[in-house]
Amino acid sequence: MITTLAGGVGAARMLRGVVAAFGPESDSPVALTAVVNVADDEVLHGLSISPDIDTVAYTLAGAIDPVRGWGLANETWTAMESLRRYTTSTGRSDLGWFNLGDQDLGTHLYRTSRLAEGAPLSEVTAEMAAAWSLPVTLIPVTDQRMATRLVTNDAELAFQEYFVREQHSVAVTEVRFAGSDSCLPAPGVLNAISGAHALLIAPSNPIVSIGPLLAVPGIRQAVTARRDITVAVSPIIGGAALKGPASRLLVELGHESSALGVARIYRDIAAIMVIDEVDAALAPQIEDLGMRCVVAPTIMVDRDAAANLARIAIEAVRSSRP
Amino acid sequence: MITTLAGGVGAARMLRGVVAAFGPESDSPVALTAVVNVADDEVLHGLSISPDIDTVAYTLAGAIDPVRGWGLANETWTAMESLRRYTTSTGRSDLGWFNLGDQDLGTHLYRTSRLAEGAPLSEVTAEMAAAWSLPVTLIPVTDQRMATRLVTNDAELAFQEYFVREQHSVAVTEVRFAGSDSCLPAPGVLNAISGAHALLIAPSNPIVSIGPLLAVPGIRQAVTARRDITVAVSPIIGGAALKGPASRLLVELGHESSALGVARIYRDIAAIMVIDEVDAALAPQIEDLGMRCVVAPTIMVDRDAAANLARIAIEAVRSSRP
Repeated sequence: MITTLAGGVGAARMLRGVVAAFGPESDSPVALTAVVNVADDEVLHGLSISPDIDTVAYTLAGAIDPVRGWGLANETWTAMESLRRYTTSTGRSDLGWFNLGDQDLGTHLYRTSRLAEGAPLSEVTAEMAAAWSLPVTLIPVTDQRMATRLVTNDAELAFQEYFVREQHSVAVTEVRFAGSDSCLPAPGVLNAISGAHALLIAPSNPIVSIGPLLAVPGIRQAVTARRDITVAVSPIIGGAALKGPASRLLVELGHESSALGVARIYRDIAAIMVIDEVDAALAPQIEDLGMRCVVAPTIMVDRDAAANLARIAIEAVRSSRP
Repeated sequence: MITTLAGGVGAARMLRGVVAAFGPESDSPVALTAVVNVADDEVLHGLSISPDIDTVAYTLAGAIDPVRGWGLANETWTAMESLRRYTTSTGRSDLGWFNLGDQDLGTHLYRTSRLAEGAPLSEVTAEMAAAWSLPVTLIPVTDQRMATRLVTNDAELAFQEYFVREQHSVAVTEVRFAGSDSCLPAPGVLNAISGAHALLIAPSNPIVSIGPLLAVPGIRQAVTARRDITVAVSPIIGGAALKGPASRLLVELGHESSALGVARIYRDIAAIMVIDEVDAALAPQIEDLGMRCVVAPTIMVDRDAAANLARIAIEAVRSSRP
């Protein structure tokens, strides 16, 4: 079994490669599981929205919008345009900042109804994965509510406020995961970690995507116990993130925006670090941290590139085994 | 000022006539207010839905779907089709029985957000009326939550379960309005009744549309105090309702499915009853109840017919004044 710790877009692309290399239609199929971040989840307009779960599911279903990188392909925006009639009339454009496509709304309507019935998010996520015939078992890291909070000089923002509304253009002084202390790992999460033959930390944001997973009590210990078979792929390439605020957040929170900075964050939980070829010069310093460093092309320009990266990461685990 | 007690479709058509006859673009403009039923309101998929308010607003905006009689014209159903992927996969078609058009969803997204902020429904409804530039002041009868419950031999149903899901095809033994005891009339409702020069009871369902209005503490007394200027239009024509379960409900609850049966329900609160020409023979019995009975064409085939009916009803009030 290969288990992946996953955020949103970067993890979704990585998982697409994992499926290509090790999924049911590959030459060497194994069971695939993804443990997905839910600290970005929001209730907006009464609807329960799980952006990372949706991004991973839509990507693995081949239904993601390839240009935007989030939401569904061939999406329409009728509901949002209708909403705008009201927000324009009342000067409340602050109510319409989170884009909800019409197809995407179907997902939120279903999830919201099921959660309101009392179904845990893990059950609803499994139903969603089945509805899309996904080749990966998707598990939210927890069924409880935890929320990434980003503290700035002026305010404390929810993740989607920071990421979507403010376009991550404000300086962050602190990140915390409200409610994480009382979260439990969702059913299946600890087994997916303890039973994995390889544990892959996707090239997601270490602070706000992987950070919340590790903040759920029991997860960090479980991953640490599997350090020998854990491989992390750096989301920082040539000192920058391909997308999103990882680089900026790392610096603002006192880390280095480099593959080395990421390696320092993961050194206690991962034995192996995969970094991009442009960062090859950092390999000795990463190995000095007590990690094995693998240099590879890490930009997942297409599924083949992602599959290649997945093979390299998993092979590194296999070849490292005592 | 003309104030109308309103349910959904029948009231919306009546109000269109009131606007044509007495609205801002008429020869004799007066202030128009509608007090609208909210006991059919539902939270579905996390969204706050007010079917009667929406039907009245969309109709007065000229935006109602003319064929269905509810929802918006040129509607699309992308979100519902997307929802069906999940409900089909999980065999949960019971989660998708209430049709939500994509444009209509914009209304619900706005309303839900505003209510979640703590805005009272009356304020949100006023915003909605402004966004559509409606020529009528719309007020929900109450800002509190009340819910029509229909008791059958097998179950107790919420209104939309009865009306939409069961297509009002089950026998009802009792109707009650849960929570009505602790409701207050919304701001402006009592003034709209006490300050009206004519009070019009729209040809809505007497049991489940007008009934809930009268169940809000203070409303029945307020209307009774204005009995002299209150005119009710019978929704029953030739013993049947044009649409919906009014006829069946009347019989099941021990009333007569006729304009006379409706007059008996309203005799204490309305001095004048408008009935259709086909029911002219009932006029003497209705006058025996102590009401004045006006016979008129009451089928509102178009706006002119509705305007004509409105003029007849309001003229009856004017000519009855001592």
